[in-house]
Amino acid sequence: MPEIQAVRWDENTLFLLDQTLLPGHEVDFVADDVDRVVDAIFRLVVRGAPALGAVGGYGVVVAMDQGEREGWSAEQLQAQIQRVRDARPTAVNLAWGVDRVRPFVDQGREAVLAEAEQIVREDTAANKRLSEFGADWILAKTGKSTLRVLTHCNTGALATTAWGTALGVIRELHKRGALELVYADETRPLLQGARLTAWELEREGIEYFVQADGAAASTILRGMVDFAIIGADRIARNGDSANKIGSVGVALACHAAGIPFMVAAPSSTVDLTTATGHDIEIELRDGAEVTELAGVKIAPVGAKGFNPAFDVTPAQYIAAIVTEQGVVEPHNTPDVSFLVNGEKA
Amino acid sequence: MPEIQAVRWDENTLFLLDQTLLPGHEVDFVADDVDRVVDAIFRLVVRGAPALGAVGGYGVVVAMDQGEREGWSAEQLQAQIQRVRDARPTAVNLAWGVDRVRPFVDQGREAVLAEAEQIVREDTAANKRLSEFGADWILAKTGKSTLRVLTHCNTGALATTAWGTALGVIRELHKRGALELVYADETRPLLQGARLTAWELEREGIEYFVQADGAAASTILRGMVDFAIIGADRIARNGDSANKIGSVGVALACHAAGIPFMVAAPSSTVDLTTATGHDIEIELRDGAEVTELAGVKIAPVGAKGFNPAFDVTPAQYIAAIVTEQGVVEPHNTPDVSFLVNGEKA
Repeated sequence: MPEIQAVRWDENTLFLLDQTLLPGHEVDFVADDVDRVVDAIFRLVVRGAPALGAVGGYGVVVAMDQGEREGWSAEQLQAQIQRVRDARPTAVNLAWGVDRVRPFVDQGREAVLAEAEQIVREDTAANKRLSEFGADWILAKTGKSTLRVLTHCNTGALATTAWGTALGVIRELHKRGALELVYADETRPLLQGARLTAWELEREGIEYFVQADGAAASTILRGMVDFAIIGADRIARNGDSANKIGSVGVALACHAAGIPFMVAAPSSTVDLTTATGHDIEIELRDGAEVTELAGVKIAPVGAKGFNPAFDVTPAQYIAAIVTEQGVVEPHNTPDVSFLVNGEKA
Repeated sequence: MPEIQAVRWDENTLFLLDQTLLPGHEVDFVADDVDRVVDAIFRLVVRGAPALGAVGGYGVVVAMDQGEREGWSAEQLQAQIQRVRDARPTAVNLAWGVDRVRPFVDQGREAVLAEAEQIVREDTAANKRLSEFGADWILAKTGKSTLRVLTHCNTGALATTAWGTALGVIRELHKRGALELVYADETRPLLQGARLTAWELEREGIEYFVQADGAAASTILRGMVDFAIIGADRIARNGDSANKIGSVGVALACHAAGIPFMVAAPSSTVDLTTATGHDIEIELRDGAEVTELAGVKIAPVGAKGFNPAFDVTPAQYIAAIVTEQGVVEPHNTPDVSFLVNGEKA
């Protein structure tokens, strides 16, 4: 089966596998101007923190190409690059990707493109490495030879440049013959778990169940899983972690059940300039994503939806955060800088 | 606006407001034989513990009428009554309603019908009374004059014979001018919150938002509500409470945030013969309820759904349980018999 590529640069064009249409249809979205890049990010054609890092990098190339075609001034170009950077405020990787390639703009398009491709190579390598670290840690921590795991949202190849973060750890356990079963939260309102994680697990031949998000706490409390693992959209210096809405409920249940709750992300997700979770801006999305489903109205006429896209899990409920630098146990580490630079704080 | 009647006995026929079609369509389901009664219970045409108590009572009359038409023996009649009683194992009220009228079968149809109608009158009165007790308790506990509340599933007039249990407490607060805002969990997989609770709140003119179940924990942790309240399908002697899947996650979040988590139900929901939550059988429903939504497949081909209908909230996470007898704080009351008989254990 061909490898999943959520973000693909080909023949000087940015192609995004349109995740709003999965699992029913596998269709590429051509992101060939800034409007389309921003639209793709906002509508979640492409999503997942590490994937957005790559889109941030490539998005600057798209902006430069459009500027060249349309004769933009340097100021116009910078304003358009900023639009890409600001398309999803909670996801730090998007801004990180833009900021990483921006210094190369003066050196021209090829230098920017080379740096964007470097982001992709590094992200893929980081995911493989953090998955090994994560698998090592959880096997040692639980002392079990096969594991049952719960995950929330999608953190696989679709959310990254390849392989995945939390789902990468799960893939790594599967590769080692140490995975028994996955419970995938469906992840309302946009069903990234039921649509995307299930699609990846199905392709991989991994045994799994999809469950309603409300089932997660009881699956955990009834002893049906050995640990839970999620990705992150932003990790603060103290270890507080923003991730898809519903994550903190999973963490509270793991805490009550006494099983590990893990966060897996590349170091680009760690934002040392954010002191704690209180400083993380939570993106509030259109309430219609809750009151409608696949275009069908489910709530009565007049109903308003409250639709925060993310929540913040306090560090005290996180057993381990893993990046390509290694593992930190935040409840006994007040500063997680090690996850970025590999050095003790 | 006419009063909502989920269960209606009219012209010697049992009518059920078909809740699978709300909020889009208001259609009566005619439950005129045992097959149709059992089908209505199983498909959730009628649901909610107290409403099922009434259906248990009327269901015996329906069975007797069918037996009369079809010439059943006494054994055949008892077997058919048992089918009604067993249609949903977690909901204690259904069995309770059947058992309450069954001793009158020998006295004939009119005696059974009179007892079934007595169940309805008592349930309605119990809901009004428990709503007053609940409102008194939460206003005293919080010391606030207006309250913001989170609720899960539907526990209103649709779930009972009238008024509601947890939603009855909310109605009572609204009546007293002490209600600011309701966050209604949509309650996947069958969306009783988004469809039914929203429909009742909309009719009542109460301010509310619908949110994904995954949003509940963060709404609570962010200090956006003053308490949470749910109904129950079975309450064990020690206070452990079974309710719609997703309830225990709400309880854990309230515990972490230090706000009250309340359970409201008529005394018929308290099952003193069940010692603890470990003894409650959890109904496992068809996985397709999770992998499909409103008939649309959302997960990939091959995906299996895990679909427990209920979860159990341990008594330690429940600040108060209220019935028409009064309020018990289970964390300092090892036996909740008071909720049934009004006497200290």
